[in-house]
Amino acid sequence: MTDKSRTALVLGAKGFVGRHTCRALAAANVQVTGLGHGSWSASESSAWGLSRWVEGEIDLASFEALEFDSFPETIIHCGGSGAVSYSYAEPFKDFQRSVDSTAAVLEWVRRSGSASCRVVLSSSAAVYGDQGDVDLTEMATRSPVSPYGFHKLAAENLCDSYARFFGVKVSVVRLFSVYGEGLRKQLLWDALNKFRRGETGFFGTGHELRDWIHVDDAATLLCAAAGPGQADFEIYNGGNEHADTRRVLSQLAVVSSLGRSIEFNGTTHTGNPRRLTSNCMHARRQLGWMPRVVLAEGLARYVAWFEEAASSGGQG
Amino acid sequence: MTDKSRTALVLGAKGFVGRHTCRALAAANVQVTGLGHGSWSASESSAWGLSRWVEGEIDLASFEALEFDSFPETIIHCGGSGAVSYSYAEPFKDFQRSVDSTAAVLEWVRRSGSASCRVVLSSSAAVYGDQGDVDLTEMATRSPVSPYGFHKLAAENLCDSYARFFGVKVSVVRLFSVYGEGLRKQLLWDALNKFRRGETGFFGTGHELRDWIHVDDAATLLCAAAGPGQADFEIYNGGNEHADTRRVLSQLAVVSSLGRSIEFNGTTHTGNPRRLTSNCMHARRQLGWMPRVVLAEGLARYVAWFEEAASSGGQG
Repeated sequence: MTDKSRTALVLGAKGFVGRHTCRALAAANVQVTGLGHGSWSASESSAWGLSRWVEGEIDLASFEALEFDSFPETIIHCGGSGAVSYSYAEPFKDFQRSVDSTAAVLEWVRRSGSASCRVVLSSSAAVYGDQGDVDLTEMATRSPVSPYGFHKLAAENLCDSYARFFGVKVSVVRLFSVYGEGLRKQLLWDALNKFRRGETGFFGTGHELRDWIHVDDAATLLCAAAGPGQADFEIYNGGNEHADTRRVLSQLAVVSSLGRSIEFNGTTHTGNPRRLTSNCMHARRQLGWMPRVVLAEGLARYVAWFEEAASSGGQG
Repeated sequence: MTDKSRTALVLGAKGFVGRHTCRALAAANVQVTGLGHGSWSASESSAWGLSRWVEGEIDLASFEALEFDSFPETIIHCGGSGAVSYSYAEPFKDFQRSVDSTAAVLEWVRRSGSASCRVVLSSSAAVYGDQGDVDLTEMATRSPVSPYGFHKLAAENLCDSYARFFGVKVSVVRLFSVYGEGLRKQLLWDALNKFRRGETGFFGTGHELRDWIHVDDAATLLCAAAGPGQADFEIYNGGNEHADTRRVLSQLAVVSSLGRSIEFNGTTHTGNPRRLTSNCMHARRQLGWMPRVVLAEGLARYVAWFEEAASSGGQG
């Protein structure tokens, strides 16, 4: 995607994965429109590569109000809570943000009759659930263990249906543990804040094995999944480096110079599988995608951002 | 359910399966409220056993406006198009009627905190798709071959999620080929109208094997699935008598005295599996449910209704 006339619409563009995706698209000379929740000034959104930011619901009415000169070639859907915990607290809203929004974008593309548009859905490893000691391929059983995983799977299945029966082109990208600068929640954020308070205790066993992917690599995968030469319906895993919680936190403690001896309380629960790791050969072979940020580098960048953000108190 | 103090809410109560379900509930001394599309006079709806009919969308706002004295013990969701063809013509509306409505009722029950309420979802054999020469059990792979089937499956999976994570009690009933008096579409309706016009040609091969269940039996199954003693999440097949299209139409021709030699044009398509038949032992063993209307009797009743409806021109 190097032609300046190419256009993309990013849904949930103000979110963590969404804004990095906008930046990656803009770097490839794509004109980016963003739609989603939250107010975002023109200067801030343009710094992330957006030509236009529209605050609104991700629904048919919003799409129809966008009034594109020509229908966008690429629609990347990064909307949704992105949080398993939210899906327990607010399952109906999580359903609406994951599933209804996906139904709306698929229907909008179907009605447009566009033959060139491709939808990319940012989905999640949560659709797999707990499957034991294996690097999961895209063909693995999907057996989610949280409302969030159920909703992502429902959204994926709708994509399958619209591709199969209506010819809407869709690529689903199942992101594993995405981290990176700007993420103000989840393990790394919580850990650095605990380190600063002098706390050393963490939930879990420390042996939870995850597949860490830096948000820059997640963004390039989402963009690559919008490219040509794919089947109408494709699914790609997006992961990179396998590491368990103990290794990640130990490395983080060293990098941040805040480390203590980390302790785990030994708890386990079914919503949190012991292992969730990917085989990403499909994305590498089909799309030529390669992750570039190794975990050591990614953690160093995260710590640098955290210290800057903490000292300035501003937006990361 | 013989206690007059028991209450039920039937969603899509004015539809073909819905109205027969209301009648079956009323026959068991249950007080029935109906919600769904269409105007329905008090005299007509009470003839079908309803104490109250509310015309409206099947969504949270409608539920909250119902203002029950006590939360209903039983909610039977018969809403939705009930038609594969509609799901191709209007996939987004079919999605909303199947999936959004189910999400709304599950969320309403979750918010109510009711420990006694059970939701029964009227689902479809369409979730199975084309699986070859076997009577399907509820554990069979679900591999739908139409948007309708995808949407029903998405609704079922939401029920699974709400049962698993929020303790909402749900029984899913996968109805096979439901027929009966009042059904003004599908094979029997089309065939009798063709016979009257002197037409003898039908789509298909005549060898499409289906599992025919009279709407009275479908209604008693939906009611039985609301009963006590079940797991939080249950799935039941609802079928009865296996017969292929040729046998059904031949029998219909004899009963109606309108018959000709029936011809098939030999077409097949993937949305219409060659065989779709059930193993219903789970409903029989768990619920004590037994279908009562054999196909010969059901066809005779359908023809009698058709002739009455055709001669009077009125509502069946």
